[in-house]
Amino acid sequence: MDYAARQARFEDALREAGIDLFFCPPGSDLEYLTGLRRRMPSYGNYEQAHQWATGTFFRPGRDPVYLVLKSAAAFRVTDGTMGEVIELQNVDDAGAIFAEAARGFGGSRIGVSARTWASTVVQLQQALPGAELVNGDDLLNRLRRIKEPEEIETMKRASEVADAVMAEIKPKVVEGVTELELASEVDYLLRRHGARAPAFDTGAFSIGPNEARDFGVRVSGRQLTAGDAVSFDFGGAVDGYCSDFGRTVHVGEPTEEFTRCHEIVIASEAAGAVAAAVPGATAADVHRASRAVIEEAGYGEWFRHRTGHCIGLDTHERPFLSEEDDTVLEPGMAFTIEPSIFWPGRVGVRVEDLYVLEERGCRNLNEFGHEILSNR
Amino acid sequence: MDYAARQARFEDALREAGIDLFFCPPGSDLEYLTGLRRRMPSYGNYEQAHQWATGTFFRPGRDPVYLVLKSAAAFRVTDGTMGEVIELQNVDDAGAIFAEAARGFGGSRIGVSARTWASTVVQLQQALPGAELVNGDDLLNRLRRIKEPEEIETMKRASEVADAVMAEIKPKVVEGVTELELASEVDYLLRRHGARAPAFDTGAFSIGPNEARDFGVRVSGRQLTAGDAVSFDFGGAVDGYCSDFGRTVHVGEPTEEFTRCHEIVIASEAAGAVAAAVPGATAADVHRASRAVIEEAGYGEWFRHRTGHCIGLDTHERPFLSEEDDTVLEPGMAFTIEPSIFWPGRVGVRVEDLYVLEERGCRNLNEFGHEILSNR
Repeated sequence: MDYAARQARFEDALREAGIDLFFCPPGSDLEYLTGLRRRMPSYGNYEQAHQWATGTFFRPGRDPVYLVLKSAAAFRVTDGTMGEVIELQNVDDAGAIFAEAARGFGGSRIGVSARTWASTVVQLQQALPGAELVNGDDLLNRLRRIKEPEEIETMKRASEVADAVMAEIKPKVVEGVTELELASEVDYLLRRHGARAPAFDTGAFSIGPNEARDFGVRVSGRQLTAGDAVSFDFGGAVDGYCSDFGRTVHVGEPTEEFTRCHEIVIASEAAGAVAAAVPGATAADVHRASRAVIEEAGYGEWFRHRTGHCIGLDTHERPFLSEEDDTVLEPGMAFTIEPSIFWPGRVGVRVEDLYVLEERGCRNLNEFGHEILSNR
Repeated sequence: MDYAARQARFEDALREAGIDLFFCPPGSDLEYLTGLRRRMPSYGNYEQAHQWATGTFFRPGRDPVYLVLKSAAAFRVTDGTMGEVIELQNVDDAGAIFAEAARGFGGSRIGVSARTWASTVVQLQQALPGAELVNGDDLLNRLRRIKEPEEIETMKRASEVADAVMAEIKPKVVEGVTELELASEVDYLLRRHGARAPAFDTGAFSIGPNEARDFGVRVSGRQLTAGDAVSFDFGGAVDGYCSDFGRTVHVGEPTEEFTRCHEIVIASEAAGAVAAAVPGATAADVHRASRAVIEEAGYGEWFRHRTGHCIGLDTHERPFLSEEDDTVLEPGMAFTIEPSIFWPGRVGVRVEDLYVLEERGCRNLNEFGHEILSNR
């Protein structure tokens, strides 16, 4: 990836927004700008001494300054890192070092990455009292949402990993296996096929006549029986870029209603969303087109979420293909289309693919077929 | 857990600190105060519309107000939730609802949970201009670091899960298996034994004569061969509370140096850290006692991290058993002791147990033995 070009575009955006100084902690924004890898996610926070002080100061026309933990520097500072690197050791006075770096740049209008911790923001405001704090979310989202060709290629590879994992997991959806066993196998396969990590917590949930629970519980320890249908929802982070993919696999012969719902969901994706997804349409237009197909078939009440979301270094990026999002779609945007019918105790079907928008419409980065899947 | 009692203690702490209003987004602080469960961690951010606006406003003497996503409310609002619940839908003006809730309380000194997003902080400062922002980290850490008996019982169960997983994984450390297969199996077993999720990204790294890489790479796809020694580092979140555990398992007969290093590391834990860990000692005292054993044996250069860290709802909580941390230890604190010798290309051994401090010293919550482990 061409980080120098990205930083140049970022500087232009900072100048345009009148932002003197920008602080970006480790995360997807910093990985976008510099290639500095995020850490693995952790259920219980996994904090190190002085972690609040780590990140990068950017100022238009100046080299960035990186504050990194000495313990992490060897593993995470990469070729994309241009500028001064200050290593923090446990015994250092991180507050003083951070304040000195901030004051060395100065600034009266300070942007921060959206997920910067409040503990960091407080220190930033103390170092530069009176400065105005600006949420950098829109500014970075505008850069990140139009994918470069190399980003699309990387997301294609991430989607190929998802396709390959689906091909391997499909025959394992049989009586007696648990959702947890399937989800764990998916996580293993994602990494074996080259993902750094699952892009998000893998879902493998069977909703149908045998299961009245809702789709908020993404994995259970319940053993599958005939008549179950497991909706998979997973993706892998390949070189930092996420895939997000889904199919439903039946244990035994699908019922007539499951077959009908599969056809409706496929139509909602193809005749609905894909047909509507062209440059100039809004994100909400695509959502409404997808939703209309399911509503007309009488299952509108059970399509209970948005149609999709943009994706890249993060799993969910704006714009969202959702009722409230009027963003106009542009070539280079990458998003999921993932209509579903989830009716607890009756039927549960979802199909999800990852698309990139081109001049004439959207192109599916997944190659896994749309036929109904079952192990008879 | 007695959330009402915790909220009462929290209100006292807010009054003492002169904080009028406190905002706490979903996370371990909010789970501590209310039982509201955190979401699963995600490598690629997994944001929903209006997520920045979710969390709870607390003000001494008033009932809390919860802002939750309608899509998540059914799955995550629990019995610990006391006060008003406002559900946010995608089409809502979340900024206006958030500002109205903040202004309904008012306040001139506003505390926030340390990991509150900057995007939320900016909105809070716009809703209550001129208010002083206070990092709530110390205030909540002081409450959280002394564990209640029920918390210790829960962490004991989390440690039993770790012990059980170690017993199941140990015989699988044989020639031909990959570190990734072992780590994936650990993650599966943690959940099968009842953990919500791994507490952090599982490590299964073989450092020794066959492997010159450093311990920052926690899992590789490399197949084990005779002479390898896999250092496991894992834990599970049981009812939200983390365990953190480690042992090293040899493929074949351990060499003389591995055996000696195992004995040094065990001595560093027992004769070093455990002996020093009494109420009134400082966190740094325990670190120095642990470190001294390894230094005297001539491996000081290769004990390259802190001796341990407190633990609870989060994997790493302050105080840290580390050179720079002079916090005085008190009964009710729970912490890891995890000395190691990691010399890439030569030898790699770590042993880690979870302890709770009592009046007369510290008690090991793990029951897995300290003998050297190998599959011959």
